[in-house]
Amino acid sequence: MFIDEIIRKSLEEDLGSGDITTKYLDLEPISNTAFIVAKAEGVLAGVEVARQVFRMVDSDLKITLYRKDGDKLHPKDEIMRIEGRPGSILQAERTALNFMQRLSGIATKTASLVALIAKTDCKLLDTRKTTPLLRSLEKYAVRIGGGYNHRFGLFDMVLLKENHIRACGSISEAVKRIRKHNTTYKIEVEVTNMAELDEAVTAGVDRVMLDNMTSTEVKAAVKKYRKYLEMEVSGGITEENILAYAKTGVHFISSGALTHSYKSMDISLLFKE
Amino acid sequence: MFIDEIIRKSLEEDLGSGDITTKYLDLEPISNTAFIVAKAEGVLAGVEVARQVFRMVDSDLKITLYRKDGDKLHPKDEIMRIEGRPGSILQAERTALNFMQRLSGIATKTASLVALIAKTDCKLLDTRKTTPLLRSLEKYAVRIGGGYNHRFGLFDMVLLKENHIRACGSISEAVKRIRKHNTTYKIEVEVTNMAELDEAVTAGVDRVMLDNMTSTEVKAAVKKYRKYLEMEVSGGITEENILAYAKTGVHFISSGALTHSYKSMDISLLFKE
Amino acid sequence: MFIDEIIRKSLEEDLGSGDITTKYLDLEPISNTAFIVAKAEGVLAGVEVARQVFRMVDSDLKITLYRKDGDKLHPKDEIMRIEGRPGSILQAERTALNFMQRLSGIATKTASLVALIAKTDCKLLDTRKTTPLLRSLEKYAVRIGGGYNHRFGLFDMVLLKENHIRACGSISEAVKRIRKHNTTYKIEVEVTNMAELDEAVTAGVDRVMLDNMTSTEVKAAVKKYRKYLEMEVSGGITEENILAYAKTGVHFISSGALTHSYKSMDISLLFKE
Amino acid sequence: MFIDEIIRKSLEEDLGSGDITTKYLDLEPISNTAFIVAKAEGVLAGVEVARQVFRMVDSDLKITLYRKDGDKLHPKDEIMRIEGRPGSILQAERTALNFMQRLSGIATKTASLVALIAKTDCKLLDTRKTTPLLRSLEKYAVRIGGGYNHRFGLFDMVLLKENHIRACGSISEAVKRIRKHNTTYKIEVEVTNMAELDEAVTAGVDRVMLDNMTSTEVKAAVKKYRKYLEMEVSGGITEENILAYAKTGVHFISSGALTHSYKSMDISLLFKE
Amino acid sequence: MFIDEIIRKSLEEDLGSGDITTKYLDLEPISNTAFIVAKAEGVLAGVEVARQVFRMVDSDLKITLYRKDGDKLHPKDEIMRIEGRPGSILQAERTALNFMQRLSGIATKTASLVALIAKTDCKLLDTRKTTPLLRSLEKYAVRIGGGYNHRFGLFDMVLLKENHIRACGSISEAVKRIRKHNTTYKIEVEVTNMAELDEAVTAGVDRVMLDNMTSTEVKAAVKKYRKYLEMEVSGGITEENILAYAKTGVHFISSGALTHSYKSMDISLLFKE
Amino acid sequence: MFIDEIIRKSLEEDLGSGDITTKYLDLEPISNTAFIVAKAEGVLAGVEVARQVFRMVDSDLKITLYRKDGDKLHPKDEIMRIEGRPGSILQAERTALNFMQRLSGIATKTASLVALIAKTDCKLLDTRKTTPLLRSLEKYAVRIGGGYNHRFGLFDMVLLKENHIRACGSISEAVKRIRKHNTTYKIEVEVTNMAELDEAVTAGVDRVMLDNMTSTEVKAAVKKYRKYLEMEVSGGITEENILAYAKTGVHFISSGALTHSYKSMDISLLFKE
Repeated sequence: MFIDEIIRKSLEEDLGSGDITTKYLDLEPISNTAFIVAKAEGVLAGVEVARQVFRMVDSDLKITLYRKDGDKLHPKDEIMRIEGRPGSILQAERTALNFMQRLSGIATKTASLVALIAKTDCKLLDTRKTTPLLRSLEKYAVRIGGGYNHRFGLFDMVLLKENHIRACGSISEAVKRIRKHNTTYKIEVEVTNMAELDEAVTAGVDRVMLDNMTSTEVKAAVKKYRKYLEMEVSGGITEENILAYAKTGVHFISSGALTHSYKSMDISLLFKE
Repeated sequence: MFIDEIIRKSLEEDLGSGDITTKYLDLEPISNTAFIVAKAEGVLAGVEVARQVFRMVDSDLKITLYRKDGDKLHPKDEIMRIEGRPGSILQAERTALNFMQRLSGIATKTASLVALIAKTDCKLLDTRKTTPLLRSLEKYAVRIGGGYNHRFGLFDMVLLKENHIRACGSISEAVKRIRKHNTTYKIEVEVTNMAELDEAVTAGVDRVMLDNMTSTEVKAAVKKYRKYLEMEVSGGITEENILAYAKTGVHFISSGALTHSYKSMDISLLFKE
Repeated sequence: MFIDEIIRKSLEEDLGSGDITTKYLDLEPISNTAFIVAKAEGVLAGVEVARQVFRMVDSDLKITLYRKDGDKLHPKDEIMRIEGRPGSILQAERTALNFMQRLSGIATKTASLVALIAKTDCKLLDTRKTTPLLRSLEKYAVRIGGGYNHRFGLFDMVLLKENHIRACGSISEAVKRIRKHNTTYKIEVEVTNMAELDEAVTAGVDRVMLDNMTSTEVKAAVKKYRKYLEMEVSGGITEENILAYAKTGVHFISSGALTHSYKSMDISLLFKE
Repeated sequence: MFIDEIIRKSLEEDLGSGDITTKYLDLEPISNTAFIVAKAEGVLAGVEVARQVFRMVDSDLKITLYRKDGDKLHPKDEIMRIEGRPGSILQAERTALNFMQRLSGIATKTASLVALIAKTDCKLLDTRKTTPLLRSLEKYAVRIGGGYNHRFGLFDMVLLKENHIRACGSISEAVKRIRKHNTTYKIEVEVTNMAELDEAVTAGVDRVMLDNMTSTEVKAAVKKYRKYLEMEVSGGITEENILAYAKTGVHFISSGALTHSYKSMDISLLFKE
Repeated sequence: MFIDEIIRKSLEEDLGSGDITTKYLDLEPISNTAFIVAKAEGVLAGVEVARQVFRMVDSDLKITLYRKDGDKLHPKDEIMRIEGRPGSILQAERTALNFMQRLSGIATKTASLVALIAKTDCKLLDTRKTTPLLRSLEKYAVRIGGGYNHRFGLFDMVLLKENHIRACGSISEAVKRIRKHNTTYKIEVEVTNMAELDEAVTAGVDRVMLDNMTSTEVKAAVKKYRKYLEMEVSGGITEENILAYAKTGVHFISSGALTHSYKSMDISLLFKE
Repeated sequence: MFIDEIIRKSLEEDLGSGDITTKYLDLEPISNTAFIVAKAEGVLAGVEVARQVFRMVDSDLKITLYRKDGDKLHPKDEIMRIEGRPGSILQAERTALNFMQRLSGIATKTASLVALIAKTDCKLLDTRKTTPLLRSLEKYAVRIGGGYNHRFGLFDMVLLKENHIRACGSISEAVKRIRKHNTTYKIEVEVTNMAELDEAVTAGVDRVMLDNMTSTEVKAAVKKYRKYLEMEVSGGITEENILAYAKTGVHFISSGALTHSYKSMDISLLFKE
């Protein structure tokens, strides 16, 4: 789905058979002004999505953006000004905030982890552990937070996991089969120890995923192969251990928690006179 | 969207132009067995959704459920068994887990808050602060966790918030306008102090939402009106203060955090022989 | 479906693989003027829908509204003026009229019944006996005609009918089960005699539907319980008996005929020079 | 839209965010039996559509048909038997009946008009004055009632109306333009007097629509041209005058009222033990 | 699907989860100018579709058309000028060209066959052998090339082929059954020899399709019946034999090759300063 | 769109408001047998798609496959047997053949080019010059014919063309910008001479596209860099010159003609007794 369809269906979800509160209030169409305001520290993401929500509800609303995605926010910072029919603003409010709060939550979490490894060359990657239907938006928020995107889905990179390998018999057999058909995509293989790593390198892959290895193990692996292929650490990354992994010289650290367990950022809509 | 459409579009999101890993591996169609296993404590939710994901990818997969939604899970508990083509299992895996991990996260969080107020008569409600497009599933997970659903969207209950009231001039005027057209839906009004509460009760609403009031203020409000209408506390509910609010005798406590900031539950898929 | 989607699909239905008459006529794009004109007495409804049909076919059409929904119409009254490419006007004509004629038919029928009970406090309600896919529009037309909307669908009010009650064993058992989960929606119960009514009131419902009772029976029921809960009469309402029912003091009368058997209002499109 | 999509969207319209009555009743899945029963005289239409509604809600329901489309119905005639989960039956009931009642209403009305002209060779046609989105079903019901279908939409027959002709200058010019491009479709022209009719015949059309002419005028027209092309009467057809028109020897009479102003047939669903 | 939906889905197909090249280049939004230029001889078709592709990607692009559909093109002819963000132009380029190259290929092929029979009265028809989902565009391109459209699909003309006839027993029986229900559509019958042709004419059809007959056989058939009904030649039409068939006096020749085996026309997009 | 949606919409395109021929014939539901038969030499592709077309029209049809995709076909080879209602077979016929004829045409063309370079190590790639909406099917047919897929769309590989490079100032600047964000996708650059090639190699890309270079130029380029990165020839590939290019030792040759100008393969459906 394109973003516009996601927004449209999200509005359908909330509006259903109609906003009975606004509909029954018979509000006079006096123009009103509302502000979207941060109520916590964080990194803004989703301001364009929110704008599109308001526009889709009522194309007559006048919207002014005071901040852009990627901006650091502090409590009371004004993000956006919306002027127009109060009924339209109230109908769009919840859906607009639901997007912006989540995306800003992801950007904020990403930025905090990125800050921890800022002095290294290591890049922080997301995963496919995203909310169903919102992957494109969540991966966008990771980029806004300073992270990088791993593959988008099953279609744009080859990733051989333990189960693929077992089904083929060995890493080298699995890689051989992929090479027979694939000319377009990078090939990554998940490995869990040095022996598998050696086999993967010999098989000629583009990247290895060092899965659930200690930072000491990672250090040895990186030392041996960093020059020859891309190396990625995955599994069990926390605020406490991320720097230790990054210092090993590994190229990438990937973290599912960026998108599977974020905290929505506190952002509100307020009417003002 | 109906659940089936949500699942179908989620699979489209992940599969895109095709799962190149599985497609290029030329796996023999030897039947394989995988298990979905809990890796943390929690309350299961979404097991039927996950089953439907597998079925939609490959209707030949044989699926056995060992647990049902609402069950308490412990690490290593087997939830589901899937037997069939390994390529099909691998294609469905991530999407199935993305649903189940989030829904179980919500059910678990809900259950932990419900446990804190279990000895009171107070009911825990969700809000509309849900993930866009997944509201029906997330509200289902709240019920599985022992919570209750507040209105689903803007269409099934009247909720007069500060901005509606200001646009009409007063609570009594706003309620009067709603009563002029509405015969079907309960009317709730947000109030922030005793004066507003008095006005709301006089106007004849079905429920009041005591917004951001202290538990002491709530206690006084409840004492005065509990017998006459439904009373709900909202705003700033935490694990620390929820019991104090519940003990005031208020009928409902609503919490946006149930759905806006849950932690995905750790659940994995493992192949076994 | 949102209204725009209903309109778009309705145009697809009529235009199919293309309007061959207009396409093959090679009309010169000389601007033309058409009027939509009433050819009977009635209450107008659907003028905005019709406007949207014309706009969707050709956004260059200039449309002026002379009447608004709810206006009383007399033969020859001009409702709308459309100026632009004649081919566009001709393509939109039938679909625009099909909507407006039906909705005005419903508004007209509703208004005639409402007029009969205008001196009572009784309100006229619609039902779910609407044309598939057009419920939102038909319920809108009922409101335009002075009626009120009963629940929109199965999702926004609890209505316990005979078959639900039988499946649970008794009214009180059915209501108890609903109360266990529901905190959001009003509960209505269908009753057919005084004993059932007594049981429903005791069970604590919000509304009773007095089904197929005589006006004499209704009068007794209303006398006993009017002060304590909402009361609705349903079944067999006609122009002849509606006033007798309304005079019993019952709060609501619901009528499926408003939407299941209306007569389309005669409205035409005419080109003028 | 294909029929299945119409049914699916109609169910979405009614079920919305879920059937709260059934969902909250926690009914035991004891199989139950319901019958769909006629409560008036009429011609059945839509029995397959109704069956599909039940199947789409719950594919486990066992459905037996006692009557088929086109059968004459009398009060108390059993049409269909449904056995299965009562919750499923109750969810499908209203939508299934909404289709069947309307379609049977159209078939019944059509059959009554067809009966009036049964002794003539004249055929009764429908028009494009159908309910938006339901045209295929309504035209089907006309056939079930013994009528014939006029063109389905703007795409499958050329019909030159007054406004097309005026835009081209004359009937002969309009027909000439159509002939330049069209090789596939019949060409019909609307005429209102003998002079226009003469011009249309000379221009070489396949059919003429005699619009709002008296039966005497029609008689003269038919006498002159019946042998050479198809002739259709349109406008102001009633139960009172239809036979007079049919007796003129005209080939077709078309009537918008078949679909724009039908009365739904009274059909009910009853649970039995 | 309407054209806009075809275009939107075609863009989704190409853009998928995002144009990574353009997205990652961080191009400055300096306006740029590109031209669509012919690189071969041919007949242009699809220029409006291409324009709509660009607009849908970016409504700010300024587009000037230098040629219109039906124009003869020579190498280096400029067709269209696009000015705006280079990223937008690059995203739309391939999809716009994919449409225009194919449609121009069809128009060119059609025009070349039409030229061969230009001195006869015979008209060249297309068939239903079109690319799935693109039929409306491909049939449009045939008209642009000077051809005529045969029926659009199964719904707008009756065509009795060998298999239909066999299932009914005879041509006359098949036609009789169609006549019983059909009043709207022309009836065509496929015949393969003079005996079948005689039977079809006697049965009273509107057109016969002379299938896979030699031009000598066609000549005899045409001589006998040309005055009485439309006659069409079908099967095995080539550049070599088309004139011989056309000279027989047959009304129509239909050719599947117009749409099933065209060569895309070479058209490019170039940036200029 | 998933394949099933492509098929469903293709059937809607052909069936529109209904197959009037079959519908009006009132065929008795006597089971009938049809065969799909090759009428030319070629490589079969699309047999599963065709089967799915028949199934979607009528799930009761019994289908037996005699050949599978990739099989060499000779005239009169039977591909598939379909048994069931003749009306269903006739409705699905054209759409099923339209898919299979095109896909087999692509597979056949691909196979003929692949055969020409079979003795080299060079692989034949497709492009994005595919029919809008059918890319997944057409790229599948290329694989069946022995070719390989280039990137699917704009989302799964970075390809810097002349216009991207000009907008950035130089190849090295463009590659630098991509590297700043991209960690997932291979980077390819289009070059037209040795100087650009040198710059691209220095910039560190994964593949170069040698655009419109002579085989002599390609030979020199390959000699210099073949060991260090993937090399692809593009532009002006014909049956005459493909072997000369392949013999240069280049890794890949890409050809738009595989999908933009194929000839549909002649395949028919025949009823037999």
